[in-house]
Amino acid sequence: MDFLATTPKPPYYAVIFTSQRTADDAAGYEAMAQRMLQLGAQQPGFLGIESVRNADGQGITVSYWQSLDSIRAWGKQAEHLVAQATGKAKWYELFLTRIARVEHEGPV
Amino acid sequence: MDFLATTPKPPYYAVIFTSQRTADDAAGYEAMAQRMLQLGAQQPGFLGIESVRNADGQGITVSYWQSLDSIRAWGKQAEHLVAQATGKAKWYELFLTRIARVEHEGPV
Repeated sequence: MDFLATTPKPPYYAVIFTSQRTADDAAGYEAMAQRMLQLGAQQPGFLGIESVRNADGQGITVSYWQSLDSIRAWGKQAEHLVAQATGKAKWYELFLTRIARVEHEGPV
Repeated sequence: MDFLATTPKPPYYAVIFTSQRTADDAAGYEAMAQRMLQLGAQQPGFLGIESVRNADGQGITVSYWQSLDSIRAWGKQAEHLVAQATGKAKWYELFLTRIARVEHEGPV
């Protein structure tokens, strides 16, 4: 089953990206989102991703990473910087990124 | 805007709950989900929640907490235990819970 990311034994890191889409540019957004999924998965330290958006444009994407360094490197990747700037200017009404250290899988 | 949780300065904790709904019992599930949102928000240490499910039944819910102890207490709350057992038996095709310590908000 592809929806749940298969991640290693903790600890590892999660980027929790919560966003509200604007009504603008659905096609451009979708193309970039697909490209970022593809490109992100090729980054060193990438472990997996889970992403959901509902019909109201509310979305949560959680990507999983080996280290803070791997998250930082992806944050500065050239195409990703363009995607981030365009997201801020056009695609997202609002968004928030949280960086977290996953300490446990399963019931606490 | 209600969708993004307003959380304090890190550190704090996140429970990342990723799930795939079955096609069963939409009404029973919705009633319980609403009840758990209401009850969870009353728990000591609760900071906020973000939740999205798409039309395919894929969902991500991230709840935010002051401490691991507050997460543990909620995990053992009596009505929540019933909800968890019913979820496992009937509402969820599959699910995974991850406990993470939020270290940073915004770009890393």
